[in-house]
Amino acid sequence: MQVFTDYLYFNTKKRQEFVHITDDIAAIVKKSGIDDGIVLVSAMHITAGVYVNDWENGLIHDFQEWLEKLAPAGLDYRHHQTGEDNADAHLKRTIMGHQVTLPITSGKLDLGPWEQVFYAEFDGQRKKRVVVKVMGING
Amino acid sequence: MQVFTDYLYFNTKKRQEFVHITDDIAAIVKKSGIDDGIVLVSAMHITAGVYVNDWENGLIHDFQEWLEKLAPAGLDYRHHQTGEDNADAHLKRTIMGHQVTLPITSGKLDLGPWEQVFYAEFDGQRKKRVVVKVMGING
Amino acid sequence: MQVFTDYLYFNTKKRQEFVHITDDIAAIVKKSGIDDGIVLVSAMHITAGVYVNDWENGLIHDFQEWLEKLAPAGLDYRHHQTGEDNADAHLKRTIMGHQVTLPITSGKLDLGPWEQVFYAEFDGQRKKRVVVKVMGING
Repeated sequence: MQVFTDYLYFNTKKRQEFVHITDDIAAIVKKSGIDDGIVLVSAMHITAGVYVNDWENGLIHDFQEWLEKLAPAGLDYRHHQTGEDNADAHLKRTIMGHQVTLPITSGKLDLGPWEQVFYAEFDGQRKKRVVVKVMGING
Repeated sequence: MQVFTDYLYFNTKKRQEFVHITDDIAAIVKKSGIDDGIVLVSAMHITAGVYVNDWENGLIHDFQEWLEKLAPAGLDYRHHQTGEDNADAHLKRTIMGHQVTLPITSGKLDLGPWEQVFYAEFDGQRKKRVVVKVMGING
Repeated sequence: MQVFTDYLYFNTKKRQEFVHITDDIAAIVKKSGIDDGIVLVSAMHITAGVYVNDWENGLIHDFQEWLEKLAPAGLDYRHHQTGEDNADAHLKRTIMGHQVTLPITSGKLDLGPWEQVFYAEFDGQRKKRVVVKVMGING
C-alpha cells in the first residue's frame, strides 16, 4: 500500500468564497501514482469546509443564501466575547461538512457525472490550508 | 492491502425515498474478503445522500418533515433559472451527508446496536448510483 | 499496511454534553505505531456525533443553542409514538456529523492549528461507544 500527502493553499479575496478544486485533487491523485483507493480532502481550519455538489453559479448562490438563513452572521454569539466575530463561519462550515473522502478507481477520481469538489471559505482573506491524503494500491 | 469496488443502483418510485442498504453493504464487504479495514459508501449523484441512523419509520418521517422545514421545495431558487426545479434536493442531501465510512472488524461491519445505513433519495424516479469502496487486509 | 482498532467509552453526567477527545485519539494513533495514513473516529450510537471544531467554551455554547433552534427538543415527533423521547437528538447529531476521518503524517495527527476533535452527546447518562480505526503504513 502507498500513502501520498499534499496540501492546497487558499487566500481568498472575499471573506466568503467557494472555490472549485476538483482539478487540483485530480492532479494530486495522478502525482501519487495510486490507481485504486481513496483520497481524503479535509479543511485544516475550522471556519472552512470541503463539499461535493454541482458546479453551477446559481446553486452556489442558493447555498450561500441558505446558509445565511440557517446560521446568520452578526448575532450576539457567545464566541464573540473572546474578541472573535466569526461564530457564524464555524456553524456554516458544519452544515457544509469539513471533509470528503473520494474513491479512486483505475487511476482516476471515481465521481458521478455532476460531482464536483469545492473548498468553502467562510472567513477568508488570510492563508489557509487543505490536507489531501491519498491511500491505496498501484496497479 | 486489498481494495474492492462495487456499485449499488437505485431507481426509486417516489421523488423522495429513503432506502435501507445495510444488508447490501454487508454483502459487498463479505464478497470483498476483507476482514479488517473500512468501507466508503458514497452517493454519486448530487441530489442524494447516504447516512447512518435508526431504522424506524416514525423517525424517517421526522427526518423528511424536518428537512422540508430547513430546505423547502418550491422556493424561488436561483438554480431554477437553469430550468432545474430541484435546488432543495441539493440542500437536503447536504444536511444528511452524502457519504459514510464504515469500519470493518473480524470480517463484519463494526456497527453499534442501532446503526443502520440508508440511501436518501431527494430527486429520484431515474437511475442513480452509489459507489462502495472496501479497503483493508485479509486475515 | 496495518490496521489497528480501539474503542472509546462515554457515560456523560448530563443528557447533552460535548467531550474533548483529541488527546484520546492521539494516544490511540501512537499506540497503533502507524506513521502515515488515516484514523476513522465514528460514533456507534445514533444520538451522538463526532466533529472537529474550536475548543472554546463560548463557541460550544453557541453550537448547542443553535442546534436547539434548528432541531428543537419537545416537539410532537412521530418517533415518540414508539415510546422514545429523543428524536431531536437524532436530528442534532445529523447536523454535527457522526464521524470524522483524520490524517496521520509523520506519526502524528495532521491537524490545523485550531482543529480539535469532540464527541457530541445528545442523549447521554448511559454507556456509549466510539470506534477508532487506524489504517496506514509504518515508517
